[in-house]
Amino acid sequence: MNQSGKIYLVMGVSGSGKTTIGQLLASQLHIDFFDGDDFHSVSNIEKMKSGQPLDDHDRHDWLKNINTLASKTLAANTSAVIACSALKKQYREIISANLKESIIWIYLHGSKELIQQRMAARQNHYMPVALLQSQFDILEIPNESIKIDISLDPQTMVNTILQETYKTTLGIVGLGVMGKSLARNWARAGVKLSLYNRFVKGVEEQVAEKTIQAYPELEKASGFEDLPSFIHSLAKPRIIFMMIKAGKETDRFIDEMLPHLDAGDILIDGGNSHYEDTKNRIAFLEKKQIHFIGTGVSGGEKGALYGPSIMPSGSYEAYQKIEHLLYAIAAKDKNGNPCAAYIGPEGSGHFVKMIHNGIEYAEMQLIAETYAYLRYVQGLDPFAIAQVFDAWNQGDLHSYLLESTVQILQKKEGESYLIDLILDVAGNKGTGNWATIAASELGIPAGMITGALFARYVSTIKESIRHIKQASITNIHSTQLSIDTIKSAYTAARIINHQQGFLIIKAASLEFNWNLDLSNIARIWTNGCIIRSRLMEKMIPAFHDHYELFEYPEFQEESLRLKPELKSFCISALEFDLSIPCFTASLDYLNSLSGMYSTANIIQAQRDFFGAHTYQKMNDASGAFYHTEW
Amino acid sequence: MNQSGKIYLVMGVSGSGKTTIGQLLASQLHIDFFDGDDFHSVSNIEKMKSGQPLDDHDRHDWLKNINTLASKTLAANTSAVIACSALKKQYREIISANLKESIIWIYLHGSKELIQQRMAARQNHYMPVALLQSQFDILEIPNESIKIDISLDPQTMVNTILQETYKTTLGIVGLGVMGKSLARNWARAGVKLSLYNRFVKGVEEQVAEKTIQAYPELEKASGFEDLPSFIHSLAKPRIIFMMIKAGKETDRFIDEMLPHLDAGDILIDGGNSHYEDTKNRIAFLEKKQIHFIGTGVSGGEKGALYGPSIMPSGSYEAYQKIEHLLYAIAAKDKNGNPCAAYIGPEGSGHFVKMIHNGIEYAEMQLIAETYAYLRYVQGLDPFAIAQVFDAWNQGDLHSYLLESTVQILQKKEGESYLIDLILDVAGNKGTGNWATIAASELGIPAGMITGALFARYVSTIKESIRHIKQASITNIHSTQLSIDTIKSAYTAARIINHQQGFLIIKAASLEFNWNLDLSNIARIWTNGCIIRSRLMEKMIPAFHDHYELFEYPEFQEESLRLKPELKSFCISALEFDLSIPCFTASLDYLNSLSGMYSTANIIQAQRDFFGAHTYQKMNDASGAFYHTEW
Repeated sequence: MNQSGKIYLVMGVSGSGKTTIGQLLASQLHIDFFDGDDFHSVSNIEKMKSGQPLDDHDRHDWLKNINTLASKTLAANTSAVIACSALKKQYREIISANLKESIIWIYLHGSKELIQQRMAARQNHYMPVALLQSQFDILEIPNESIKIDISLDPQTMVNTILQETYKTTLGIVGLGVMGKSLARNWARAGVKLSLYNRFVKGVEEQVAEKTIQAYPELEKASGFEDLPSFIHSLAKPRIIFMMIKAGKETDRFIDEMLPHLDAGDILIDGGNSHYEDTKNRIAFLEKKQIHFIGTGVSGGEKGALYGPSIMPSGSYEAYQKIEHLLYAIAAKDKNGNPCAAYIGPEGSGHFVKMIHNGIEYAEMQLIAETYAYLRYVQGLDPFAIAQVFDAWNQGDLHSYLLESTVQILQKKEGESYLIDLILDVAGNKGTGNWATIAASELGIPAGMITGALFARYVSTIKESIRHIKQASITNIHSTQLSIDTIKSAYTAARIINHQQGFLIIKAASLEFNWNLDLSNIARIWTNGCIIRSRLMEKMIPAFHDHYELFEYPEFQEESLRLKPELKSFCISALEFDLSIPCFTASLDYLNSLSGMYSTANIIQAQRDFFGAHTYQKMNDASGAFYHTEW
Repeated sequence: MNQSGKIYLVMGVSGSGKTTIGQLLASQLHIDFFDGDDFHSVSNIEKMKSGQPLDDHDRHDWLKNINTLASKTLAANTSAVIACSALKKQYREIISANLKESIIWIYLHGSKELIQQRMAARQNHYMPVALLQSQFDILEIPNESIKIDISLDPQTMVNTILQETYKTTLGIVGLGVMGKSLARNWARAGVKLSLYNRFVKGVEEQVAEKTIQAYPELEKASGFEDLPSFIHSLAKPRIIFMMIKAGKETDRFIDEMLPHLDAGDILIDGGNSHYEDTKNRIAFLEKKQIHFIGTGVSGGEKGALYGPSIMPSGSYEAYQKIEHLLYAIAAKDKNGNPCAAYIGPEGSGHFVKMIHNGIEYAEMQLIAETYAYLRYVQGLDPFAIAQVFDAWNQGDLHSYLLESTVQILQKKEGESYLIDLILDVAGNKGTGNWATIAASELGIPAGMITGALFARYVSTIKESIRHIKQASITNIHSTQLSIDTIKSAYTAARIINHQQGFLIIKAASLEFNWNLDLSNIARIWTNGCIIRSRLMEKMIPAFHDHYELFEYPEFQEESLRLKPELKSFCISALEFDLSIPCFTASLDYLNSLSGMYSTANIIQAQRDFFGAHTYQKMNDASGAFYHTEW
């Protein structure tokens, strides 16, 4: 979109409110307003006053005058609003001669009855009501114009004009992989966009402009690297979606925007921000009457482009104003409903996204551990493993991550499997760490997420730690497991992973009074996001009536039914010296929850022994605390 | 110590500075000063002016006058400073008649030469220099007095007087289990104490006084529940040791003390504060010129009473001023050196204590898991298990925690083993949680600490989670392990626990530039603290030349030598459905560090697949990052 001057030409029959609307529009755009009637010749005015209609000859010079006014305005690289009836196409052609691209026609339309009423009520106007009919007679409704219903109140009319013309609907900040993909998604959904990317000399220059040029669907978007211009390009209340680095950078950027924002504007943070930061930002900006919504967005590049899963939280009032925008790009669940839903107050959206990522860590690690067994114990090559995984993926074990792994394992580079060329050092971006911390703080055992996190940590530090040298797989008298046994173990471990993850969400909901809907969270995770799977679909009804997966008989029974295979898998993998922290954590969870061989009494006795921390007794209804002089 | 009035009687030959010192002392104690000379009769004064020495008859009424002055002062329940030569024992007896307990004699002593110089320089004094010799002739140096060297500057003299009389050396705040025990320890070491405990109506009333009454060794301590009086009872610079609840309560208490503190005062926080809080408090108080030292204290009640391990950090300058106090109560290592040492700057002392507790969590859990195996798989009763542990404890596996467990398992209540009566819900006070969080944040895998923490969590939530019903130990064809195999597994797991724990300390030292001395930390943990053990002693030389346990051949070799037994133990325990999160975490650590069957390449491929996070390649010296369009 061209950023140079524009002429907003407000047209319509006499009495339609051109002056009122034109002046209001001009004042909001901080540009000049001109009444076309001021450019009539004296003789034209006299003629109208005497009740005679003007003929086209009368009008020609007048319209030429307006054309000159518009030309001069544009030549000065400024904009203006001009009110002029411009009822016939030929009049408009005179006005817009050589200026076609720069004139925005705004047609105020209303019924003759309404305008008659208004004119009857109006004093001191030189046009008699009698002329109205002649105006309607000659009116040729323009095609390429913004049509505004004059029965609305003036501010609403002007807002509509702004939205329909100069102002865009949604601003996007940060055009990295995710921001760029979301922008394309929104553009395809027909949303008018302003795109902003910071300017970093030599590193990030003209990123917005280049992004727009690179993708045809962004053709109509406006690109900026000047923040005030970006913000002022947005219709009010402004809606700005940030997809930038979490942490201090987000705070810095909010501070940078603040002087340019107005009460009622809505900021949406789609980055992986910490939920406590989001809570603080909501509170901070609320004082300035600016809405802040923190939203988890999952789906990676492809999800962002074709439909992510979206987890917004903050003020419900503000959420309602942006819901349609989120629905416009979100993935759809099985029933065609968007995989986006209001999560709850404060930073609950980012919390839920953080746990999503924690579950994701463990899901990935379970696949990796299963791969290790199939590769190093069963001796399958990556292609054969891909076949196994592909078969599983056709059934109840279907998941995006398993499907992805099938594709990964099938990839070759030259003669080699690409997977064998990739350095075994796993990165992490913080959410798995945060999920571990949140579980620790909330008192929830999350051995699988933590196991997956620490597995990545080991991979990053093992070069700096002296390697533990050990023999490779040798003469252990262990029988290999059947593929079905491994499949059962993997099935069980996944259920336990989801049980652990959702239990953290449940604990947070209770701790922070968020009143989260676990069933709906499972629903919006059935598509778009990285952990979408058939299992997730089965969890929607489970969480409908229960607040916990293991309260749902189907899942508890399935875990127990599959436990022997899970156990066999763990034991066999350990016999072969494999690192399987997620599988052992899942097995341990079942063992510890049974409470049969609990040893917490030993811990309590020790604590009382050295620290006089006291203990309670079995079957002691009083709940009293005892201390023993050991 | 009696809090009612005192007479500070400053004595010495003429010219020794009694008036100067007496006035300064009185002003600092906010009490009256009286010059004894003002109580001479007129005839005595004339006699002295004429150069004649007074005889004892002259002096008798004068000394009686002073005795009357002192009596009246004490009767009014106030204190005073009186300057009076009081050179002979018989004079002092007249002055102190019936007041013996309430008079503190302060003898200003100096050489005749020094006093002659000073008198020669002094103007307008009615006693000629010639009389000095006669004073020295009759002087009888008092035995029960505070002797002050007049060659010091007046303020130093007064400080010494205060320290030697009214003022105490160390203030202790908070008289719970730990604070009370430390106070008794310090009192036995001869340190003059002021003890403070808050007043909470109906809950904590006269705690300090009652504590003093309860323990004979505290007889000389002063007890307070009025904070300003407590603080003003301390000699400057004041040294105040806090043993109160960590967190906001500590901040509130510091704020409450602040108005009463002076530049140079030293606060020591011995509670389990978070290391970041300690860092912030040091910085906050530094601006007010008050030193703050955060110190870990380990050893529980008994350690506090007979010798804890102490881990102070903060300003080294301030540390030097309190080192002797810490040395006075710390446990002693094998060589007789105190188990207390300056750890480093900021909150490093509390960090190290936090990791100490993390290691402790895992040590306790390893014992609990071993117990579970011996009890439920081997079928031993608590007594028999105590015998096994006791035998281990005689050798290289000796540790305070194992020793404690022997005593715990031997305890009966009626016909039952006490351990069987204790509710299996394990508490935690935060440091294990913090250690897990610190490891997560520093990128260090700490599976054993986390496993122990989560085991406690499971014990607290398992009632609220639907129990996983499963059959008890059944017909699994597993052979029981020998006690020696179990012992080897336990030995290996303990080494790995210490490797993981010290690695977190190493990482923090590098991250925060603390320059910690791991060998010395191991040394101060060989006695006094909860995790003291023979293994800890073996670690001192290991960390001497190496920054990591596994770099020391002995430990690496031992871990590998024992690995088969560790593996056998884990596998057997899993076969019997035991929860052994710490043992499996230790085994997994060895497996994952070998790097043989690493699967981090799968994780990296998945991350690149869905998030375009890129990956590096094996044997790629360029270190370049690649992205594949999968």
